[in-house]
Amino acid sequence: MNFDMNEAIQVLKSTPGTLTSLLAGLSDNWLHTNEGEETWTPIQVIGHLIEGEKYNWIPRLELIIQQGAAVSFPPFDRYAHLTKESESSLDNKLSEFQKLRMQNLNRLQALVHTEEQLELKGNHPQFGTVKIRELLSTWVVHDLTHMSQILRIMAKRYNQDVGPWIEFLRILK
Amino acid sequence: MNFDMNEAIQVLKSTPGTLTSLLAGLSDNWLHTNEGEETWTPIQVIGHLIEGEKYNWIPRLELIIQQGAAVSFPPFDRYAHLTKESESSLDNKLSEFQKLRMQNLNRLQALVHTEEQLELKGNHPQFGTVKIRELLSTWVVHDLTHMSQILRIMAKRYNQDVGPWIEFLRILK
Repeated sequence: MNFDMNEAIQVLKSTPGTLTSLLAGLSDNWLHTNEGEETWTPIQVIGHLIEGEKYNWIPRLELIIQQGAAVSFPPFDRYAHLTKESESSLDNKLSEFQKLRMQNLNRLQALVHTEEQLELKGNHPQFGTVKIRELLSTWVVHDLTHMSQILRIMAKRYNQDVGPWIEFLRILK
Repeated sequence: MNFDMNEAIQVLKSTPGTLTSLLAGLSDNWLHTNEGEETWTPIQVIGHLIEGEKYNWIPRLELIIQQGAAVSFPPFDRYAHLTKESESSLDNKLSEFQKLRMQNLNRLQALVHTEEQLELKGNHPQFGTVKIRELLSTWVVHDLTHMSQILRIMAKRYNQDVGPWIEFLRILK
């Protein structure tokens, strides 16, 4: 096991800035591309990350701390950002994500102080028993997987353009 | 085909800042991890990107413009950064990458002005005929694939820690 609270926070803290650096200067062709029917655009991925800040990570952490495994997590809708799609611009979405993330990291640090707390158990509707350590590790890897998704969505725009080099470009496979 | 010079430059320009945001605040445990024997650490990936700035993209572009397909590209050693590994810190490596990238984007804009130039042909030692359009598209996707590689290297540290959530985390598959 490699989870360490301070190291996890290093990553969680940097994600909004990393996404801002990656996306803020891009044209609509990059921001509104996707990988085909029923797949997400980079902007929709940011919408999903915002939903996670509001309804997933910290609410679940609070539920575990308050009620343990007695109550199952309320379901998190992984597609909510598609139905309540807002008109807000990329810049607004990135700022909202940044603000929520910073609030949530403060909340995390106020709630979890000890190694023992990482072993506290909650009840996931699909997986059954899960630990705070697993929830927080997943929060980190969830950031990494969705940043990676955005890079892959972008790369696929040039699927044809790279010609024979496709052979060397793992992201296009 | 989707390649557009201005859009490509948007991505190429943002990569050093994106990598700085992602990596600059991280502890050594994140920076020196890899995916197992003969795989790279995040710092080694930056070393490889620096090699590309020095010996791959712009030198090949210049060769095509000066000599067309008459001369084959000199081979690019994709493992050079492993043998001439420097002691320079992550911060120094990121600054070097940023500086070289900005110089190279200036050079690119000085060299390529027209759509017609994108069709100019060079000679790749393995692939045979390649076009400037393909070389420049590959430069962009090469950035994206190596940023994605760094995210994947990092994610794998928490392979065990995420517990049952591994099922939802594509980056760990």
